[in-house]
Amino acid sequence: MADLSVFEQNESAVRSYSRNFPVVFDRARGALLWDEDDRQYIDLLSGAGTLNYGHNPPSLKRTLVEYIANDRITHGLDLATVAKRRFIETFTSVILHPRGLDYRLQFTGPTGTNAVEAALKVARQATGRSNVVAFTNSFHGVSVGSLAVTANRKYRSAARTGLGDASFLPYDGYLGAGTNTLEYLRKLLDDPSGGLDMPAAVIVETVQGEGGLNAASNGWLQELQALCRLHEIILIVDDIQAGIGRTGSFFSFEDAGIVPDIVILSKSLSGYGLPMSLVLIRPDLDVWQPGAHSGTFRGNNLAFECAAEAIEQFWTTDEFERATRNKGLVVFEELQRLALLYPDAGLQVRGRGLMIGLASTSRPKLAGEVSRLAFERGVIVETSGGKGEVLKLLPPLMIEDDLLTSALAAIGQSLHDAVEGRTAERSPAA
Amino acid sequence: MADLSVFEQNESAVRSYSRNFPVVFDRARGALLWDEDDRQYIDLLSGAGTLNYGHNPPSLKRTLVEYIANDRITHGLDLATVAKRRFIETFTSVILHPRGLDYRLQFTGPTGTNAVEAALKVARQATGRSNVVAFTNSFHGVSVGSLAVTANRKYRSAARTGLGDASFLPYDGYLGAGTNTLEYLRKLLDDPSGGLDMPAAVIVETVQGEGGLNAASNGWLQELQALCRLHEIILIVDDIQAGIGRTGSFFSFEDAGIVPDIVILSKSLSGYGLPMSLVLIRPDLDVWQPGAHSGTFRGNNLAFECAAEAIEQFWTTDEFERATRNKGLVVFEELQRLALLYPDAGLQVRGRGLMIGLASTSRPKLAGEVSRLAFERGVIVETSGGKGEVLKLLPPLMIEDDLLTSALAAIGQSLHDAVEGRTAERSPAA
Amino acid sequence: MADLSVFEQNESAVRSYSRNFPVVFDRARGALLWDEDDRQYIDLLSGAGTLNYGHNPPSLKRTLVEYIANDRITHGLDLATVAKRRFIETFTSVILHPRGLDYRLQFTGPTGTNAVEAALKVARQATGRSNVVAFTNSFHGVSVGSLAVTANRKYRSAARTGLGDASFLPYDGYLGAGTNTLEYLRKLLDDPSGGLDMPAAVIVETVQGEGGLNAASNGWLQELQALCRLHEIILIVDDIQAGIGRTGSFFSFEDAGIVPDIVILSKSLSGYGLPMSLVLIRPDLDVWQPGAHSGTFRGNNLAFECAAEAIEQFWTTDEFERATRNKGLVVFEELQRLALLYPDAGLQVRGRGLMIGLASTSRPKLAGEVSRLAFERGVIVETSGGKGEVLKLLPPLMIEDDLLTSALAAIGQSLHDAVEGRTAERSPAA
Amino acid sequence: MADLSVFEQNESAVRSYSRNFPVVFDRARGALLWDEDDRQYIDLLSGAGTLNYGHNPPSLKRTLVEYIANDRITHGLDLATVAKRRFIETFTSVILHPRGLDYRLQFTGPTGTNAVEAALKVARQATGRSNVVAFTNSFHGVSVGSLAVTANRKYRSAARTGLGDASFLPYDGYLGAGTNTLEYLRKLLDDPSGGLDMPAAVIVETVQGEGGLNAASNGWLQELQALCRLHEIILIVDDIQAGIGRTGSFFSFEDAGIVPDIVILSKSLSGYGLPMSLVLIRPDLDVWQPGAHSGTFRGNNLAFECAAEAIEQFWTTDEFERATRNKGLVVFEELQRLALLYPDAGLQVRGRGLMIGLASTSRPKLAGEVSRLAFERGVIVETSGGKGEVLKLLPPLMIEDDLLTSALAAIGQSLHDAVEGRTAERSPAA
Repeated sequence: MADLSVFEQNESAVRSYSRNFPVVFDRARGALLWDEDDRQYIDLLSGAGTLNYGHNPPSLKRTLVEYIANDRITHGLDLATVAKRRFIETFTSVILHPRGLDYRLQFTGPTGTNAVEAALKVARQATGRSNVVAFTNSFHGVSVGSLAVTANRKYRSAARTGLGDASFLPYDGYLGAGTNTLEYLRKLLDDPSGGLDMPAAVIVETVQGEGGLNAASNGWLQELQALCRLHEIILIVDDIQAGIGRTGSFFSFEDAGIVPDIVILSKSLSGYGLPMSLVLIRPDLDVWQPGAHSGTFRGNNLAFECAAEAIEQFWTTDEFERATRNKGLVVFEELQRLALLYPDAGLQVRGRGLMIGLASTSRPKLAGEVSRLAFERGVIVETSGGKGEVLKLLPPLMIEDDLLTSALAAIGQSLHDAVEGRTAERSPAA
Repeated sequence: MADLSVFEQNESAVRSYSRNFPVVFDRARGALLWDEDDRQYIDLLSGAGTLNYGHNPPSLKRTLVEYIANDRITHGLDLATVAKRRFIETFTSVILHPRGLDYRLQFTGPTGTNAVEAALKVARQATGRSNVVAFTNSFHGVSVGSLAVTANRKYRSAARTGLGDASFLPYDGYLGAGTNTLEYLRKLLDDPSGGLDMPAAVIVETVQGEGGLNAASNGWLQELQALCRLHEIILIVDDIQAGIGRTGSFFSFEDAGIVPDIVILSKSLSGYGLPMSLVLIRPDLDVWQPGAHSGTFRGNNLAFECAAEAIEQFWTTDEFERATRNKGLVVFEELQRLALLYPDAGLQVRGRGLMIGLASTSRPKLAGEVSRLAFERGVIVETSGGKGEVLKLLPPLMIEDDLLTSALAAIGQSLHDAVEGRTAERSPAA
Repeated sequence: MADLSVFEQNESAVRSYSRNFPVVFDRARGALLWDEDDRQYIDLLSGAGTLNYGHNPPSLKRTLVEYIANDRITHGLDLATVAKRRFIETFTSVILHPRGLDYRLQFTGPTGTNAVEAALKVARQATGRSNVVAFTNSFHGVSVGSLAVTANRKYRSAARTGLGDASFLPYDGYLGAGTNTLEYLRKLLDDPSGGLDMPAAVIVETVQGEGGLNAASNGWLQELQALCRLHEIILIVDDIQAGIGRTGSFFSFEDAGIVPDIVILSKSLSGYGLPMSLVLIRPDLDVWQPGAHSGTFRGNNLAFECAAEAIEQFWTTDEFERATRNKGLVVFEELQRLALLYPDAGLQVRGRGLMIGLASTSRPKLAGEVSRLAFERGVIVETSGGKGEVLKLLPPLMIEDDLLTSALAAIGQSLHDAVEGRTAERSPAA
Repeated sequence: MADLSVFEQNESAVRSYSRNFPVVFDRARGALLWDEDDRQYIDLLSGAGTLNYGHNPPSLKRTLVEYIANDRITHGLDLATVAKRRFIETFTSVILHPRGLDYRLQFTGPTGTNAVEAALKVARQATGRSNVVAFTNSFHGVSVGSLAVTANRKYRSAARTGLGDASFLPYDGYLGAGTNTLEYLRKLLDDPSGGLDMPAAVIVETVQGEGGLNAASNGWLQELQALCRLHEIILIVDDIQAGIGRTGSFFSFEDAGIVPDIVILSKSLSGYGLPMSLVLIRPDLDVWQPGAHSGTFRGNNLAFECAAEAIEQFWTTDEFERATRNKGLVVFEELQRLALLYPDAGLQVRGRGLMIGLASTSRPKLAGEVSRLAFERGVIVETSGGKGEVLKLLPPLMIEDDLLTSALAAIGQSLHDAVEGRTAERSPAA
């Protein structure tokens, strides 16, 4: 039994993951983690999507250590640096130009929520409107500006201050398979008396990471883009969790063939788990006054250097993308098989690429039970969704086939046990 | 002339410091920076207070490289890790206990603004009130929750959404030397019809970093604490810029002998410029629900390891603190001398410890001109205050005496030139 | 041609009805108005639903003149008066008790919007929640608290301040005949991650007066009440326009058999067009502190006296109600006939009782044209709906049969002309 | 003992004046009221300033009865009517033109708060700014828009929704006699980092009716106007309680020689206690879209007719104004005498004209005790101020000398008793 007393006695009650996976971790590499007693875990959590290239990828590690060893700049505010220039050049030449994309790059404070705050601000400034449309089950962060467009009551009720200028509309599929939810948005936009203040922007995740792995269809995203263009509304894709290859392509919206006006990146961008965020802005919308959005850690140069290196290593060919898609299919088929195996559990496969999971709306506690049982088997896999009803698999994209196979097997066994009513030995997390 | 075209063409117009110091930096060590043409600069900016121990301090560098080399965990969400435990144990035993302080530690997203958002949330939850008192010239960050308590119109007007539940009161000295500004707050708190909704919290910087280096007196801080206790208002000290030794003591409020209910730390906490933030919460106010404030990069373990190491190196004796105070006196005396040298410029020394500067309210553009001229002489020094009217010296606390002497000499010459009307060769920044 | 120069030169540009019906009115009786040149008009506007008993009904006039002549109290703040007591006793004994209703009476400032503000406040206090659900096309007033739950952008955009703590959901029929719009609300209430903060209240009009005469079905209202009870949400019926007999029964919700937690009355309550408003509150929700909602004109005793008299005259038997229902059928059948007569105009009969009209969504300007042409024929009839697409008939409930017949004939001819493309001689109103 | 059971059992707990003056009133004339048992009261409350010409003034009564008898229009929405034209012509020719004032007239819903809401909206639209400066102890109404600029916590805390876009500054005298409170406002306006968002408007009462009869000096008002003009901020005078002759001149700001950009009138405007409100707008600020602020009872034609008649009777010569000023002096001298008589009570005379009272900040409950004791003596006089610490005399301006003398005598005796510690026989009001 791990000793977490230091955490229990000194950390705020807000701590969360350490309740669900109550051991003390120490080392990590690729898809593996080890706790301080050298017990090994397969990581299907990946820092909630931050470790797409795995823990401490060796080639990036070399880059990082060399950068540090040479006393190159670590912290740079938003000063111009060689590492930042390398990142900008690499990102524009390897990622943007081949995709025909033209954006200005805003380096915000290195959290996803800070990037969301910046994106909403610039969209409001560019349009002169205040309202923003977000969707059911969205998650965009918990600072007040982002929280206003985050759907979850657990986060919202913690603020105790106004969360204004946001309107929630139903995400793709929210009203059942037969209903095109954009018809409601279309009607409201057309209707001067529908209660929807004309929005500055629509902010959307192509796959809702925290909201339960709901994936929007390509057609829905295309229609959303068309609606936005018709009404001159800025389309913001929050690609913090679904981007950087998680669904296959670098940007999660590539399959849909849309071109958002603003894109938000973070999490796996640095490639090494280092804090970094980026807002991509259509040039004519870049109406910022110099310095009007600031932040101390905008210039995390270690992250810039790793991010540039990662892009060069993983995104100059389509090999990485193809491998992800293949693994995504493997996981999909296995989950589909499991879903069919237990028809009474009402299981449903959700998600896209390697952002995929099993939902049980009829037994919302099942996913949590599987998570606990899998952890006993050395697999770290979390839940998502408003009621935690979705078992969410977010393996490192580079996960070795045998580890993936093992992890899926452990999940299969855990699901079997959970369906049968066996509960985890350790007490459930709060 | 440096080539910044990559930045000019690709970065958002929001970029700011790279306009004021338009060269491409590459390496750094201690108090020195070098640009890509190997030109050397003395750094009196210190990452806006993030590099109190200097750039890439060698002992921390060893710790960092070793941590990375051993594949120890880099990114840990809020999982329990060995590095995090080391930080908690070090921080509580070296910093908190000897000072008789008892706080719960909340690790938030690694930006100062995220920590401010968390502090305001928990204060509102603990009291059931929404309003927060902040002060003239305050700066607490630019995400919407923090922005509501940030005084500067440049940042506020960029939001284009409601910034509610905040009331600004005059900071110490704002109404002139003869006026105790807390009398106004006292009157409003007592008055059921003064327009001040009973606040959950007062948030205050002991020295206003962005607001122009206004330093609150010890008496004022003590009276503020007494007022808060009388009305059961939570006293939050935002020690992001003034903390971690910047004014001498580890916490900036130690000289005043007060004990805030909540303390916010970031910037120099990791010691290496790595993103990290921390909220210290009086145990009975730690009413958080698990997971109610989240964030991807809360677990920057590289930062935890460096932060623990830095605390062990710099804060187990009072040597570092004494050295800072001594340097602070040196700078104070030199600035005082300069102020007297140019009586017509209406110069005034502001600040405390090594957070110190020269204000000219009668010639608000003077500070910017000195900054530009000093940069030509190889010294990086910025301005602060609502009109940029304060030349703000924030040297690394470890700065060598000769570098400090050189930097002060360059500033003295630049001030001479600026007072005489000489302008910098490069065009002023936007 | 009427001379409106005094109004044009001195009144604010906000004036509105005097643009649509540009003559100077002087006298009125029953369903008839006369302008200063003694031209006669049939009034199908009825003060937007304020004159259900007609202009200056003779029996109430006697009551009013006698009250004034005897120097009884005119203005009483919220002091206890004989007239107020008469109203309270009459209202409870004639209206509430026979219907099995038990409410506390709050006399607010004598505008509908003030009553709405009070209702929302007490609902928020009673539940400790802030959010309120309102519906598409709702109209509840234009003071900021009411405006937040009013759907129309024309009003909303005039505020230029935050309109928070409101969520709009689709009204009955908004998504087409086949969709039960309450399924969406039900799903959101159940979903902790749907983006809907648990509301204090739902506020609803049974027939949307300004929003285009959309009438909720009895079943929808019953389901709404059940949903509210399930989630302990306060159900507020805004009966300002649809109440006091407009749809037949005294309260518009009687046909549906529901019992709202809070009811808002105004407009025709005084019976003589005198300003008066009333909020009915379920006793256990009456959590008001004394004096916490105030207002100078809460005690309009002329209105109290007329209101009591009107209730005694019109509501002690069911004669008045039956007559209204009969007239409603007459109008319905005539409008239905007209709708069928011009199939290309896409006309649709909307509303309930004597709150009834003709919508043309395909030719939204048609209704305005008919209104202008009818005015030339001496009939005052306005439009409603977000685009003014609904010709809205709101005759005094006591209108004589021959006048109603004449008015309907004029409307029929005007519709004929408008469909044929004839436009009104006077220029369209702004 | 009066029987208030009907009120106690059926009215909302929010009722307030009927608790302080617990009898059932029936008739009234001039400065006298009679309850249903024919007991007589001298009225120094005047409907909180609504009955400046007394109850049911005979000449206006004739006008009113005749208007009603002739079936002239009672309720007119914002249609043009003969009565409305008469009011506009009378108001502009008798009130505005002789004073060199040029305003557009907006007839809002007939409550003061509705007029305040309209004034704030048009000021925000005209400037494109949202913030509004209000003052300590201000009262401008309790609908959410007005409540945001009302200082009193009793009202504010009842809303349970955001009260944004308002900043409170200290009113004249708030910081003691020696401090010019406008220096703080001036500094904040000049300071881009003072926390004050540049306001659309400043809203001010020249004498704070609900806030404790604080009267701004002429110099302070002039300086406020100058500050507003310097920064292009709209100056709004809320003259709802202090206007219509209460301080002597028709507008309360005439003595100061200022010309507000917007003026708000209500209360005594109709002259008969009938609900009516009016916003006067500088023509170039009248940027309203037609119909963008609406309301059912904007066209209270009974009020228009009485208001026109009252203006013709009372404001074509300066007799009425002079009489008010004389009575004001009489009251002032008597109150001053009483204040000196009881030096231990710390009494202070407050107010201006016939809006005048006695404050005791050291014994804040004294005023309430005097009010109760005076009521036993047949005098109705209320308290004001955040703690009810001010005995507030608001006699009808036409009060006969002997009644005024009697009332003052009763107050003097009641004060004597209260200072001596005698308490009223009836229990204190809640």
